[in-house]
Amino acid sequence: MNIINTIQDLRNIIKNTKATVGFVPTMGALHDGHISLIKKAKEENDIVVVSIFVNPTQFLAGEDLDSYPVKMEVDKKICELCKVDILFTPNINMMYGNDEVLIKAPILRSYTLEGQRRPEHFDGVLQIVLKLFNIVQPDNAYFGKKDAQQLSLIKQMVDDLFLDINIVECDIIRESDGLAMSSRNIYLTKPQRELSLNISKSLRIASNLVAKNCLDCDEIITAMGKVLQQMDIEYISIVNQKFERIEKIELKNTIILIAVKVDNTRLIDNIWI
Amino acid sequence: MNIINTIQDLRNIIKNTKATVGFVPTMGALHDGHISLIKKAKEENDIVVVSIFVNPTQFLAGEDLDSYPVKMEVDKKICELCKVDILFTPNINMMYGNDEVLIKAPILRSYTLEGQRRPEHFDGVLQIVLKLFNIVQPDNAYFGKKDAQQLSLIKQMVDDLFLDINIVECDIIRESDGLAMSSRNIYLTKPQRELSLNISKSLRIASNLVAKNCLDCDEIITAMGKVLQQMDIEYISIVNQKFERIEKIELKNTIILIAVKVDNTRLIDNIWI
Repeated sequence: MNIINTIQDLRNIIKNTKATVGFVPTMGALHDGHISLIKKAKEENDIVVVSIFVNPTQFLAGEDLDSYPVKMEVDKKICELCKVDILFTPNINMMYGNDEVLIKAPILRSYTLEGQRRPEHFDGVLQIVLKLFNIVQPDNAYFGKKDAQQLSLIKQMVDDLFLDINIVECDIIRESDGLAMSSRNIYLTKPQRELSLNISKSLRIASNLVAKNCLDCDEIITAMGKVLQQMDIEYISIVNQKFERIEKIELKNTIILIAVKVDNTRLIDNIWI
Repeated sequence: MNIINTIQDLRNIIKNTKATVGFVPTMGALHDGHISLIKKAKEENDIVVVSIFVNPTQFLAGEDLDSYPVKMEVDKKICELCKVDILFTPNINMMYGNDEVLIKAPILRSYTLEGQRRPEHFDGVLQIVLKLFNIVQPDNAYFGKKDAQQLSLIKQMVDDLFLDINIVECDIIRESDGLAMSSRNIYLTKPQRELSLNISKSLRIASNLVAKNCLDCDEIITAMGKVLQQMDIEYISIVNQKFERIEKIELKNTIILIAVKVDNTRLIDNIWI
């Protein structure tokens, strides 16, 4: 594995290859969710580039930027075991300057749900993803469905700005008890973690209702709310893949989303129907 | 010459070539200024792509979007004579959608001078240039020094977003009497055109002062103002190449800029020292 921390070095390697390049951008603290992205990228490309960069512009004031888990040595080992070809670990001074050209996420689709709770969060996400795309110039880039709204906005950016990159949507990976994998799960105490299982439980209940042909979104949201009643719910929302709220489940075009707060830890999860 | 009006067709041609690609984005109404860019691109690349697209997002409400000169048939002839390889003529529905990812020009460098008079103008410029860059994927892109602030911001966008494109700065082309070429010169009546010669005259006076080792910016601006006293001056400004105002001329790092209004026509001009 080639560990690279300058843009020029990475560019020289990518420019001189005719291989297909798969790219997995991460903020590190790698877990099985990331590993599943890397494996898929390995299957589908000649070369796989993983980046690790905790991107400050997507954290809001008061969020967990300073305490976000950093595990560089373990992450390197994981990438090596996954046979990652290039691990790109830029530093903040390389990635950001003063008084920059900025990216603004589309208003309607970015200021609901996550964006409503975390205004400008998606501006920062798109800013760094666009920079990384331009540096790595991948054929395929891999994102998990867990950050469903992020995935949707990245796909929109690719369309709006005519980026020549294929975005690959990857399934959510869960712990054996159902909790969606997240680098932030380590913040949870044992009782909090137990309580958090209600999140995936409520999604399974929603899924069962749909399987029984209950397609009314209000009814589904009410049933989910009951499972989550001991929790601090930020939202339960049912949208189409354009992130427009819908009243009736549309098969193959529906995402059911949850965000809750467990003490100071925000957890999100969803299912695609 | 290949005239292309779909993005996919253009992409297919560019993707399948190993040739170097030079790109000249224009809003049409081509004049000798554009022709000089095309000629330089022809000298330096295997393939030259010219785009013609009157970009609505860089015009402010009340500006001349609706009356901006459109001369497509003449422009095609000019491109053919200049041996342009690909003329790309997209329409507005291809280039813009609803609720888009937006580009915001950097605050400090874009809201002075032109940006102060035309707020959000440079946001629109960068938006369309980024889209066109991503579609054409050129090795080299050619811009005139006449739109000095635009050129500076495009170079900054290339740096900030890590675009793998070389920006080539091209000299201002002038009429024989000194007036800088512009598609908007056709708006001028004969007396207005005569009056407009004071613009380049004032720049020659500035240049002569510098040649005589007068490096004090206030002194130079005062001398220029005298030449332009019959005109509606928007600004006379002396900046370094980062568009920061300077008090003393820095050789090889100074731009002297003028904007005036002649009736409803805005004219800009500058010299690089």
